[in-house]
Amino acid sequence: MICEVIAVGTELLLGQIVDTNRAWLGEQLALAGIDVHRGQTVGDNQARIVASIREALERADAVLLCGGLGPTHDDITREAIAEVLGVPLVVDDEVVARITAMFEARGRRMPENNLRQAMVPAGATAIADPQPGTAPGLICPVGPGGGKVIYAVPGVPREMKAIVSDAILPDLRRRAGTSASIVSRVIRTWGESESGLAERLADRIEALDRTGNPTIAFLASGIEGLKVRLTAKAGDEATARALLDAEEAEVRTILGPLAFGIDDDNMETVVAAALAARGWTLGLAESLTGGLMAARLTDVAGVSEVFRGSVVSYASDIKFDILDVPEGPVVSAEAAEAMAAGARKLLGCDVGLAVTGVAGPAEQDGQPVGTVFVGMAVGEEPPTSRHLRLPGDRRSIRELTVISALDLLRRRLLEEPAG
Amino acid sequence: MICEVIAVGTELLLGQIVDTNRAWLGEQLALAGIDVHRGQTVGDNQARIVASIREALERADAVLLCGGLGPTHDDITREAIAEVLGVPLVVDDEVVARITAMFEARGRRMPENNLRQAMVPAGATAIADPQPGTAPGLICPVGPGGGKVIYAVPGVPREMKAIVSDAILPDLRRRAGTSASIVSRVIRTWGESESGLAERLADRIEALDRTGNPTIAFLASGIEGLKVRLTAKAGDEATARALLDAEEAEVRTILGPLAFGIDDDNMETVVAAALAARGWTLGLAESLTGGLMAARLTDVAGVSEVFRGSVVSYASDIKFDILDVPEGPVVSAEAAEAMAAGARKLLGCDVGLAVTGVAGPAEQDGQPVGTVFVGMAVGEEPPTSRHLRLPGDRRSIRELTVISALDLLRRRLLEEPAG
Repeated sequence: MICEVIAVGTELLLGQIVDTNRAWLGEQLALAGIDVHRGQTVGDNQARIVASIREALERADAVLLCGGLGPTHDDITREAIAEVLGVPLVVDDEVVARITAMFEARGRRMPENNLRQAMVPAGATAIADPQPGTAPGLICPVGPGGGKVIYAVPGVPREMKAIVSDAILPDLRRRAGTSASIVSRVIRTWGESESGLAERLADRIEALDRTGNPTIAFLASGIEGLKVRLTAKAGDEATARALLDAEEAEVRTILGPLAFGIDDDNMETVVAAALAARGWTLGLAESLTGGLMAARLTDVAGVSEVFRGSVVSYASDIKFDILDVPEGPVVSAEAAEAMAAGARKLLGCDVGLAVTGVAGPAEQDGQPVGTVFVGMAVGEEPPTSRHLRLPGDRRSIRELTVISALDLLRRRLLEEPAG
Repeated sequence: MICEVIAVGTELLLGQIVDTNRAWLGEQLALAGIDVHRGQTVGDNQARIVASIREALERADAVLLCGGLGPTHDDITREAIAEVLGVPLVVDDEVVARITAMFEARGRRMPENNLRQAMVPAGATAIADPQPGTAPGLICPVGPGGGKVIYAVPGVPREMKAIVSDAILPDLRRRAGTSASIVSRVIRTWGESESGLAERLADRIEALDRTGNPTIAFLASGIEGLKVRLTAKAGDEATARALLDAEEAEVRTILGPLAFGIDDDNMETVVAAALAARGWTLGLAESLTGGLMAARLTDVAGVSEVFRGSVVSYASDIKFDILDVPEGPVVSAEAAEAMAAGARKLLGCDVGLAVTGVAGPAEQDGQPVGTVFVGMAVGEEPPTSRHLRLPGDRRSIRELTVISALDLLRRRLLEEPAG
């Protein structure tokens, strides 16, 4: 069963809004076992919408149009579907009654325009939005055999999701006659390039290519590392999840500490959880990151249990006066270590983590742009530091510094038994 | 001149990532006067990419492929273009040299895979990413006449944007031979709703509707306020810019201090410039924002002239011990004022700015989620504070706090003569 999604709306082509519907629909269709090979985006032009639908029907069993069902003159998805099917638009009295009742319930006059939404291609079924909203979705069987189908849903994400979940996915599953469950899981990694991960996992990928189930894929997440997505298919969900569990264990064995979490985990939630598991508190001293590391940590709800604060020492004399850093070059291992020890003491924590470096645009203390020192002070241990060389522009260097420093802390925490 | 954008990547069809590139490209193409009628999304399948390109070439003068230029086995945009053009892939020695040098500069081993990125369809021009990055873009003239063209850019937004701005838009404009100059400018505003702005500007909008040039449009930027976009068209760029200048002056007169900047200005660049113009330095004390305000300010290159640092006092006792806040409720006007004065003194600055409040999920000190106090201490003046009630979830409240506090500082700075 192949489905093609056509997003309708000139505002999408002009870039006035980002199409988030396609990703949501893609995920739902994939999870339902429906194949999606191509997608289209088309403006509010009837001839072009008609051409898009005809082309999609050549390639796919089902075509899902998203958008263009509203009340205004440029909402012409209904007209385009009727043209493709060679049928007239007819008034659906139930939809009229529902729209009228909704306006009455809100005590508002119904603009005449809204009755446009009660026009449906002859032979189609209107799907009421289960939540309040005026535009119904449409299920339009194609041809007398009814082998193919055109669906239409409003572009408003809330209405679209409700109609797709409640009516269209069940209809698609029924037509496809699929009983397979498809589940997926993302393993988040940090510290290796895409090609490097591919080399490490080459044998595993080859083995999976032979069976085709589970499958493995890499997704770049920009500055946030790479994701390894595992997808498994089985007759029922429990079996599919068991396949995923087994594959996750295989991949984690190969990747070791490169794998830092799964699915919605990110570096800061993982670090916060690791600190909490050990009952440790954290304080920061930040120079080039200027508060970015503290901002990311405090994005985690409940982090106040483990995070005490940060000294953003952007000016050098703040490092000397407040953090007790010895006078001298502030982009150095010595400064990073003194900052970490100073933050730990001043903020009264178990661990002090500090970063100092050159984000650019100009070099500093004779050090090139991208030079970063990460300092760490754990309890009464002597502070330690790491020297990093980070690529990219100012923003990239700052963000890479944050995630690199948090990753170093994560790896240090792995050495301690969790409570 | 019609351009069709094809987004390449199975991850887009499966909904693993949201395609934000299409909107950005759509906006840039529209501003360049290039028409976009249709768009496609296609998976990492050579036959389907080839079919997509062929169909797009039937309808459009230029086809822009986005994605599938990376180093791995499923990056096959290069191969698909070569098949459409009926040419072989050849090694581009310059690209090889550049990729090799980049890995050497980072002190990392280059995985063999990366050389795939140096293969280009014969007759195509490789466009180096002006910032470090390995995938070059491609300009591939179609056929001997060279009337049509295929472009390819990486899917990574930063690399895509750089290559499109620097090489592809100029090439498109040249091919389009557009003589009309279309220029636009965005006036950034903060502190008024879209309908409120529309009311204030109603007369101006009506006047512009009569002439049709310049035009005016509103763009929501989420948490960052609203943008008022002015677009002017003329026979040459100087005339178009003069139209814009005149219209900007009209709109600024109407909006007054609601307008805080233009185009790439944001609240932090404007605040940094206003501090610099007065020779003032700034220090922060942040509670609920946890470093976010400092992080935004330090995103501005050269901000070290005016920004000294921040104390992120997430734990209450850090407020009492380090910032000299009197014991008592920390979500209060008194605490915000004491934090501002404490930060000014500790960090040795002209202005101390402080925020304390409840980002949620739970209430604190008997104050509901969304309660925020902004404190400001300027020189020897007694510190002042403002009480805000902000909407939304934890993330929204934190971000609104930052921009609201910076806006209060901006308005205070407007009261002082600039040097």
